Amino acid sequence: MSRRFTAAPRRRAGLVFCLLIVCVPMMPSSAQTPPAWLDAYRAPARRLIDAARAEPAAWRRLAELTDTFGPRLSGSAALEGAIAWALERMRADGLDNVRAEPVTVPHWVRGEERLDLLAHGERPLPVLGLGGTVGTPPGGITAEAIVVSSFDDLAARGEDARGRIVVFDVPFTTYGETVQYRSRGPSRAAALGAVATLVRSVGPMGLRTVHTGGFGYDPAVPKIPAAAIAAEDAMTLHRLQDRGIRPRLRLQLGAHVLPDADSANVIGEVRGRERPQEVVVVGCHLDSWDVGTGASDDGAGCVVAWDAARLIRKAGLQPRRTVRVVLFTNEENGLRGGLDYRDRHAGELAEHVLMLEADLGFFPPLTFGFSGSAAAREIVTHIASLLAEVDANRMAPRGEGADIGPSVRAGNIPTMSFNGDEDRYFLIHHTPADTIERIAPEELSRASAAVAVMAYVVADLPDRLQ
Amino acid sequence: MSRRFTAAPRRRAGLVFCLLIVCVPMMPSSAQTPPAWLDAYRAPARRLIDAARAEPAAWRRLAELTDTFGPRLSGSAALEGAIAWALERMRADGLDNVRAEPVTVPHWVRGEERLDLLAHGERPLPVLGLGGTVGTPPGGITAEAIVVSSFDDLAARGEDARGRIVVFDVPFTTYGETVQYRSRGPSRAAALGAVATLVRSVGPMGLRTVHTGGFGYDPAVPKIPAAAIAAEDAMTLHRLQDRGIRPRLRLQLGAHVLPDADSANVIGEVRGRERPQEVVVVGCHLDSWDVGTGASDDGAGCVVAWDAARLIRKAGLQPRRTVRVVLFTNEENGLRGGLDYRDRHAGELAEHVLMLEADLGFFPPLTFGFSGSAAAREIVTHIASLLAEVDANRMAPRGEGADIGPSVRAGNIPTMSFNGDEDRYFLIHHTPADTIERIAPEELSRASAAVAVMAYVVADLPDRLQ
Repeated sequence: MSRRFTAAPRRRAGLVFCLLIVCVPMMPSSAQTPPAWLDAYRAPARRLIDAARAEPAAWRRLAELTDTFGPRLSGSAALEGAIAWALERMRADGLDNVRAEPVTVPHWVRGEERLDLLAHGERPLPVLGLGGTVGTPPGGITAEAIVVSSFDDLAARGEDARGRIVVFDVPFTTYGETVQYRSRGPSRAAALGAVATLVRSVGPMGLRTVHTGGFGYDPAVPKIPAAAIAAEDAMTLHRLQDRGIRPRLRLQLGAHVLPDADSANVIGEVRGRERPQEVVVVGCHLDSWDVGTGASDDGAGCVVAWDAARLIRKAGLQPRRTVRVVLFTNEENGLRGGLDYRDRHAGELAEHVLMLEADLGFFPPLTFGFSGSAAAREIVTHIASLLAEVDANRMAPRGEGADIGPSVRAGNIPTMSFNGDEDRYFLIHHTPADTIERIAPEELSRASAAVAVMAYVVADLPDRLQ
Repeated sequence: MSRRFTAAPRRRAGLVFCLLIVCVPMMPSSAQTPPAWLDAYRAPARRLIDAARAEPAAWRRLAELTDTFGPRLSGSAALEGAIAWALERMRADGLDNVRAEPVTVPHWVRGEERLDLLAHGERPLPVLGLGGTVGTPPGGITAEAIVVSSFDDLAARGEDARGRIVVFDVPFTTYGETVQYRSRGPSRAAALGAVATLVRSVGPMGLRTVHTGGFGYDPAVPKIPAAAIAAEDAMTLHRLQDRGIRPRLRLQLGAHVLPDADSANVIGEVRGRERPQEVVVVGCHLDSWDVGTGASDDGAGCVVAWDAARLIRKAGLQPRRTVRVVLFTNEENGLRGGLDYRDRHAGELAEHVLMLEADLGFFPPLTFGFSGSAAAREIVTHIASLLAEVDANRMAPRGEGADIGPSVRAGNIPTMSFNGDEDRYFLIHHTPADTIERIAPEELSRASAAVAVMAYVVADLPDRLQ
């Protein structure tokens, strides 16, 4: 997931609410008495869950994806290779209407990077340019560092930032709260005359682990190079400053932008038997940042969405409506896939019954978030009650997703997210450690089962979700 | 600590034994009745422990060392800066006979490094050349990878290694067992015609964490470039091979050797009041690998050894014999400091009552290892019983230390190690994550207290430790 998904202040309120309520029963009181219609779905749910748990198919597919193609940044040969591979494998799985919908995407390239603390020789510090940063001049930028603890601290130091490299050393609390220093820090520093910005990685402290991610330049101020450093190094620079030392740094970023590149959203369906024009979308994004292998962000979401459709087909189930898997492109640094889907399918959005996106990993516990009418919430909560066995019967107040966002807003479509534990997710988010080794096969199988059941039942309900 | 310390097979036996016995009371039976002489040391121990725990002095000193100088590889300006700093601060602490004993050390330089998996473009993988490796030609070495699980597996593949990059994908069990693939893997692969070697990092899986370390070239075969990769990447290459794919890699290592450099062991003492020529050495090594900041390996050992002497002096205690702190140089890639000490002090080794080294971090639980006579073991076990309050009253069967090794073997000197938990230590050992953020101030204060009490009492005993 990109900053778009969680940077908004409302996200944090949602998270806090979610954290509060996961400890208490989340079913509405009517859930105490399951409705009669639910009984018809117990047998299909049983088949889907058993099939999902019989073999680690989703994990194996994720291993093939991440081993073969690695990270999949927009514009890269790896992303286009993964798209071609997904199309081929979806067809081999027997999905319907497998196709690529062309999307033109930005092509930012990281280049070579290096950060040195200049004291007693050159001391290299791990660094990752933020996605979309401008590069430095060839010899890099050499300047003193000034370390600040907050935007208020930066403002209080005023002229101290001029000609210096501003380091934001802000400890991680929640993603929604802390990401503002990545999102807005570079231009806030530039407004005070800083020559570059380093942001303490947005995530819990790892093992000298650096988190990249996107941000936005304020067009009113100069664009300065912006990069992330490990929490450990932000703290080191801070301690040096506290001892009266002005650390000197040299930052070299080879970042540059190439012409836009061809890419595509990948689509595959289980065609509906009665009302195929009505669609339940199960989405994710196939692109990733260029570090790690985009396993939890969001390869896992893609193999689970795709596996849900495969399981429905394999179980011989054909719902009344169409289940459509969409592997979006360019979520991380452009959202062009989500925007293209909205525009290309503008005339059909009224027929979109539900859009679900999974882009927060599948580390237990699993939770469905939902935004829509109270009546619809009651129905999906009943469906989730079929998923106690795979520990996925939790509901959270809100559903959202970066890729589905443009469409659900344009079409006022019921929205669902399917999320894992945030502590484990944000430890590796946008880092070299976002690899399949973090993910247990059984965790992915449970997620596949849950999405398969949810998508199938919503697509098959006698009455359309309102 | 370097490979020398734990690579020997006997080390593993010692560890297993140690693991077995830490669950049962470790005092000899006579320890049930404390001897009368111990009572005289309860008050001094109380003062040393209280002084150590009153403020996080050792942690603050470690922060200053690691923040100011960072990693301290032999030959670097950082190591020499740290040596000058330690001399100055030891004098300020009021230690006696503070001096540098010059040592000439090897000067290996890592240079620029890069490893790419060549598939769908270039995919950079985290890499660290092993200490002492030769470099690659300027354009690097490009070859297919062959992944093996053991030396037997390598032998079974025979000619498959020729012209290829051999990847040892051996999961970590214990350091003593797994380090053989780093120590001997490069030349075993070279003997079969391999053009380079990549070793799965020797340590528990971290967060795409790479562990460097030393190794030895067999003079009978060509020297080939050797580097470590993360466990995750070794597993990825292995899975690719299992799917019938021969991954192509390009390895670029800028390693080279410069002329030997000037360095020094740093010595400071609390001079004995009755028999100053009799010496209790408390040792550690001030050099480190060039990644991380050498906080646990072995900056922590140095600040604790040094702080023990400072605490004894500060408490106004003057033992019968001399307590000598030695911050050795060049443990990691040469052991020249330990060898120089042995030769320079050859005539005095008979007056060395005990040599203690701390080089396994101070993550709880803390344990004293001891090698010496049964009578001496009984005495130091009684002394350790004074340290229950700081959770340091455990004894293990053997004492050892890389830097003190040459001297204790030459002088047949009673040997003590003071070690922390190996699981936490080897997670970060020789990695960029060996920084002070892993270490709690209270953990270091407890270690300082323990070493201060042990060193003081051994130095003050009415009868010399036999």
